[in-house]
Amino acid sequence: MPYWFTEKHTPTRGLTFQAEQNLYQEKSQYQILDIVLTQDFGLVMLLDGVIMVTEKDEFVYHEMLAHPALFTHPGPEKVLIIGGGDGGTLKQVLRHPGVKKAVLVEIDAMVVNASSRFFPTLAEAFDDPRAEVLIEDGIAYLKSKRNDFDVILIDSTDPVGPAAGLFHREFYADCHKALKDDGILTIQSESPWIPDLQNVIRTAHHDLKDLFPIVMPYTAAIQTYQAGLWLFQMASKTYHPLTDFNAERVNGFDFRYYNEELHRGCFALPQFVKELLT
Amino acid sequence: MPYWFTEKHTPTRGLTFQAEQNLYQEKSQYQILDIVLTQDFGLVMLLDGVIMVTEKDEFVYHEMLAHPALFTHPGPEKVLIIGGGDGGTLKQVLRHPGVKKAVLVEIDAMVVNASSRFFPTLAEAFDDPRAEVLIEDGIAYLKSKRNDFDVILIDSTDPVGPAAGLFHREFYADCHKALKDDGILTIQSESPWIPDLQNVIRTAHHDLKDLFPIVMPYTAAIQTYQAGLWLFQMASKTYHPLTDFNAERVNGFDFRYYNEELHRGCFALPQFVKELLT
Repeated sequence: MPYWFTEKHTPTRGLTFQAEQNLYQEKSQYQILDIVLTQDFGLVMLLDGVIMVTEKDEFVYHEMLAHPALFTHPGPEKVLIIGGGDGGTLKQVLRHPGVKKAVLVEIDAMVVNASSRFFPTLAEAFDDPRAEVLIEDGIAYLKSKRNDFDVILIDSTDPVGPAAGLFHREFYADCHKALKDDGILTIQSESPWIPDLQNVIRTAHHDLKDLFPIVMPYTAAIQTYQAGLWLFQMASKTYHPLTDFNAERVNGFDFRYYNEELHRGCFALPQFVKELLT
Repeated sequence: MPYWFTEKHTPTRGLTFQAEQNLYQEKSQYQILDIVLTQDFGLVMLLDGVIMVTEKDEFVYHEMLAHPALFTHPGPEKVLIIGGGDGGTLKQVLRHPGVKKAVLVEIDAMVVNASSRFFPTLAEAFDDPRAEVLIEDGIAYLKSKRNDFDVILIDSTDPVGPAAGLFHREFYADCHKALKDDGILTIQSESPWIPDLQNVIRTAHHDLKDLFPIVMPYTAAIQTYQAGLWLFQMASKTYHPLTDFNAERVNGFDFRYYNEELHRGCFALPQFVKELLT
């Protein structure tokens, strides 16, 4: 039976959509997962009632989390993804032929299993011989790593529940240690339009700036995430995403959101976002 | 009594918000106007149930409709706004001290009157001695104009009802004739995420390209408009928004969305938008 669902972004606003059918629901020790079929977004995966992945627009988030860092680093070979159990970010990482190993550390096996069943075009990345999928706590995994990765991507849920620790300064310090001397960290950094998230964004920015010499926030337009505007923050030890960007490497890829001009343009922040970060 | 309202963006999706209070409703021969008070957006003006202006984020749309053209043209003195009866675009135009005259042609006096009452910080622009506010059909107004304006801004509602004619090729041709030899036209051009609007966007782009040598679409993140991503199209007879942009002129302004880097960055289009325009 079709029904209407509203994902609340504050207690008094949200994104409403009609679900034609609820295909799957499962509860793990961490969260509740739903897979619903919609007219507007195709298949949708929700965690605790929050949209994570939609068939029709997943490409925006996954391309924009992965490629700005991977095209800023001149030759990334070893990449770590924390979270991202749907496989979408891993798929984008593995499109880079120079990547020799991509480790995905997802805390909740339920997400990996549901993606394998309902989002096979994302989950096919799990079968790539260069991929290593670990079901464990990303925070614990990182503790022992030193000088190991070229790029780390934090593909987390919102800063409540199982992902809360992925927004802490100590975690960013562990990422810094786990990166090589010219490594790059990119985090998903929530919506600057939502008042309750603005402190999270500002704190993350200042924490990253204390650890990395180059911290460059950038935005993408994600219609199914809160308020439609999403922030990412790239923190780099050596390479600068504008001056060290070699646009020629983008040739031959067939992206749907990211492109050469957008790589340069996405770092141009609206004035209110610049002021929010100060 | 507080109530929930959903602005549908397709028959099966929309933006939902709680209205604390309905402050005003009026019907003209063209449309129904509502003014509601909300927690998230402050005062909101809706026309036929579609959000036009909100107190908290009107600055995005109004700054981004006005300033890219006004800072691309090296010295705009005479500006025409078609639509925009709330006064928000007019206010942004009049922030440019070089502008000597700004004509606003709004078909529906109800919008001007309601804005004067509920959005006084926008409507104060009506009292500027450089402003001329005409209540008449913008299409008819333009027919007789030749070589008259430096910049024309089309601040229309969606391409249904009273604004439908503002999306026609003939109207763009009349804008072209009404512009001086180095004039610039900017139109609001709807959301590229909404399937039913994609043809409108593409047709407008091709019509403008037939008329103007330089046509540059650009985007802004407007959380209260459909899908949160909004397209504008700048059509210019002489000046190019990237190569003829003099960033120094932006110094000293206190904008909330537009800034120098964003002027350059906003023309970098997501790949799916580039492909939609071909």
